Amino acid sequence: MADGTERRGGPFHVEVRIELKAGVADAEAESIEKSLRLLGLPAIRRVTTARIIDLECDAASEAEAMGLARDAVERLLANPVIHRVAIRPA
Amino acid sequence: MADGTERRGGPFHVEVRIELKAGVADAEAESIEKSLRLLGLPAIRRVTTARIIDLECDAASEAEAMGLARDAVERLLANPVIHRVAIRPA
Repeated sequence: MADGTERRGGPFHVEVRIELKAGVADAEAESIEKSLRLLGLPAIRRVTTARIIDLECDAASEAEAMGLARDAVERLLANPVIHRVAIRPA
Repeated sequence: MADGTERRGGPFHVEVRIELKAGVADAEAESIEKSLRLLGLPAIRRVTTARIIDLECDAASEAEAMGLARDAVERLLANPVIHRVAIRPA
């Protein structure tokens, strides 16, 4: 909602994609697989899920926005024990 | 991993991206925004979320896999009242 005066170049959007690491049970995916079989769609044989979190950053540059996103991932968004994270400009 | 011999062409992966329509409250995003402010990251001023569901389809072609995915979206994965859906080969 910033309206221009003394803008620092942004907004920059950063997309954070958070998946479960291999070996971590994905309950949502398992539930979807089961439901698809019950619905008569067994040809969809494997399901995996991910969360996308789009961050709109007020930053001077894309690099600064990426830094903010990395900070947010480390401190809030992901758990390194179970999550694999990809961060990219969006 | 396809190695050719008389496979039906698959597996094909289709990525389904499900977002909330504009105007539908995104409780997860609002909670993240609040937490980021409390953590001293107010420069991340807007957050939106989406779910990605990757479908591995046993299909003869990408077109058939896309059809399976559309079927799964309509019958199980999304609610057209509140969700905006994008389906693409992955």
